[in-house]
Amino acid sequence: MVDLIKTKRDGGTLSGEEIDWLIAAYTDGTVVEEQMSALAMAVLLRGLDRDELSRWTAAMIASGERLDFSGLSRPTADKHSTGGVGDKITLPLAPLVAACGVAVPQLSGRGLGHTGGTLDKLEAVPGWRAALSNEEMLAQLEDVGAVICAAGSGLAPADKKLYALRDVTGTVESIALIASSIMSKKIAEGTGSLVLDVKVGTGAFMKDEASARELAETMVALGTDASVRTVALLTAMEAPLGRSAGNAVEVAESVEVLQGGGPADVVELTLALAREMLAGAGRDDVDPADALADGRAYDAWKAMIRAQGGDPDAPLPRAEATQDVLAPASGILTRLDAMAVGVAAWRLGAGRARPGDAVQAAAGVTWHAGIGDEVREGEPLLTLHTDTPERFERALAALEGGFDIGNGSVDPGPLVIDRISA
Amino acid sequence: MVDLIKTKRDGGTLSGEEIDWLIAAYTDGTVVEEQMSALAMAVLLRGLDRDELSRWTAAMIASGERLDFSGLSRPTADKHSTGGVGDKITLPLAPLVAACGVAVPQLSGRGLGHTGGTLDKLEAVPGWRAALSNEEMLAQLEDVGAVICAAGSGLAPADKKLYALRDVTGTVESIALIASSIMSKKIAEGTGSLVLDVKVGTGAFMKDEASARELAETMVALGTDASVRTVALLTAMEAPLGRSAGNAVEVAESVEVLQGGGPADVVELTLALAREMLAGAGRDDVDPADALADGRAYDAWKAMIRAQGGDPDAPLPRAEATQDVLAPASGILTRLDAMAVGVAAWRLGAGRARPGDAVQAAAGVTWHAGIGDEVREGEPLLTLHTDTPERFERALAALEGGFDIGNGSVDPGPLVIDRISA
Repeated sequence: MVDLIKTKRDGGTLSGEEIDWLIAAYTDGTVVEEQMSALAMAVLLRGLDRDELSRWTAAMIASGERLDFSGLSRPTADKHSTGGVGDKITLPLAPLVAACGVAVPQLSGRGLGHTGGTLDKLEAVPGWRAALSNEEMLAQLEDVGAVICAAGSGLAPADKKLYALRDVTGTVESIALIASSIMSKKIAEGTGSLVLDVKVGTGAFMKDEASARELAETMVALGTDASVRTVALLTAMEAPLGRSAGNAVEVAESVEVLQGGGPADVVELTLALAREMLAGAGRDDVDPADALADGRAYDAWKAMIRAQGGDPDAPLPRAEATQDVLAPASGILTRLDAMAVGVAAWRLGAGRARPGDAVQAAAGVTWHAGIGDEVREGEPLLTLHTDTPERFERALAALEGGFDIGNGSVDPGPLVIDRISA
Repeated sequence: MVDLIKTKRDGGTLSGEEIDWLIAAYTDGTVVEEQMSALAMAVLLRGLDRDELSRWTAAMIASGERLDFSGLSRPTADKHSTGGVGDKITLPLAPLVAACGVAVPQLSGRGLGHTGGTLDKLEAVPGWRAALSNEEMLAQLEDVGAVICAAGSGLAPADKKLYALRDVTGTVESIALIASSIMSKKIAEGTGSLVLDVKVGTGAFMKDEASARELAETMVALGTDASVRTVALLTAMEAPLGRSAGNAVEVAESVEVLQGGGPADVVELTLALAREMLAGAGRDDVDPADALADGRAYDAWKAMIRAQGGDPDAPLPRAEATQDVLAPASGILTRLDAMAVGVAAWRLGAGRARPGDAVQAAAGVTWHAGIGDEVREGEPLLTLHTDTPERFERALAALEGGFDIGNGSVDPGPLVIDRISA
């Protein structure tokens, strides 16, 4: 291992056999954490070339089990988002694509920091449970076509160890390691095609377009090398998506979209991603807008929620306290900062600071105007929701300087910035 | 700690307070090994500037105890060698300088790999013991003037942890970390002046002069910043020093030098270093060559050995088996590779592969001609010594291609390549 660390440290290339050995040895503990830590830093500073990275990703997949959906009666498509504020897209997207005849096995995670987790949001639905066995997941995919559930611990265990290590050793910000972490799990999940939503902007992990593009290109190459049809969309994350950030508030907004309404940006991004997923699965003959309009997507949502113990008709939890932020002037909302809104929702109780912490189902932020909309002085611009009102003060502090009201028109730029394919 | 790692990773500078904190936190375990490992790799690839490195070294010294020789009746001078093959210089040097009126507190280590350790060599002397308490060391310095003993565990404990970590994480080859490791221990030892013997060549850690010079300059700067008068000599390590590499064989050669004989290169380097140590301690009025010639240095040796339980008059251990390597041709010995000889001695049992392994007192290699000397076909060129004759084969393999015999004259270049001072 010391020789392999030195090779990478000095700018050299690791062989396929060396990569296979080191990931297996790290998984079984032969390679110790401090050695992997030094290697991760060397990889961050020296990079991995395409062959090294494909092999690294394959070795992480090989460290655990791999799901197999080839026995299903329909093709599968999966989606991954690099995470944004108000990014509830998975919730309407999975049942929508299922309603169009493509199975969606969406293994998701919980939130950490200012971006929420899909499982945390769905747990706001009374009775819904995230944990399914592989057999339950397969049966639900065949019956309903959509599953959103917790990833089992058997997928890419090497990635789980490495992810925890990178977090404490300043080695998170490596595009190679980010890409292989995401793609090893997604490929191990066994989907036939994959659409990546790579966020760019203040609320995203990637703040600038060049880094986001590099990450997208790297992941598309990894998917392609592993024979998974992979496409990435670069999408804007300067402003938060839709009109809500939190848990129950995002479920409510997702249901609006599934019922044919909802904010225009959420509908636009849901349809763009659905079209890519359908095309990847060979079903580009189907228009997902029809399935939103005629209620099939909403029916699939209800079936998906019921299959996991949830009651789609039960009222969602409401916060014990709310507080409005009033518009300080009349004019046009020219800026609403995704990071400010995300941190406010987090501080209200919607997110967690440490893995395992509880979140509040009803906590979050809603806003009553989008970018370019007119607002009037003294009317509510945002509403804060929490069960613990002592949190309002710090949430309000997060929102300070987080929006601008101006005059004249504003061009927020395209939501879908670019499309990257193999 | 993660923020500090990121600062260095991204090429930034750590503040003095940050360095003090991280070394203290690493010493007490608040900063865990995997974090220090990532930082060590970032330091290796990004470097430390002079202020950072001085503070880093001071923090490592502050992690443990510091010796104080200011109560002695004579000045002190210490010497450190970066390690070479056949480098027994400490053995004649310490009593020689003591015989000239300057106290030499020489805290030494054991060998690892192809370079021998001073303590391993001296333990070939019957009865001699390496472990002394601080009080014994001080008393011997006052009475005899020279001590060569094991460094206590209280000096720079942060360095001990970091050194072990670097060894397994591919982060040994950082000039900043090498320099601070050596200098933190040497400064903590409390000497008033210090002479560094920085080896360059195939048998040394630094293979090229530029790296050796950078290490020497870095260490001289660190010593100067810590108010220790520090001078470095760059010395050649292409060929091994003297005519022996091993334990008892190097003691025997050292005694020859102390009795006024011995190989010319060992005498030259011993005198060069002795002159620097005497000058550093303010005694450049004394010529150490006189103390070699008139027996005072040898008397100091005997007193030093006796003070640590050894019998300087007892016969040294002899190997149970020897094997000669015969000169394959007649001519001039134009090259004898230090690394080849060092590895051969190691394989014969003079060195160890892992800390804690035993070494053979009598094992080693002796050679019967130096560079530029005439040799005759069929006559012994080298002799291998070991108590375990099954080791001969692998020692001979190490020597393959390790020497050249040619015609005409050869210029081995200067032994002392340069002198570096503040």
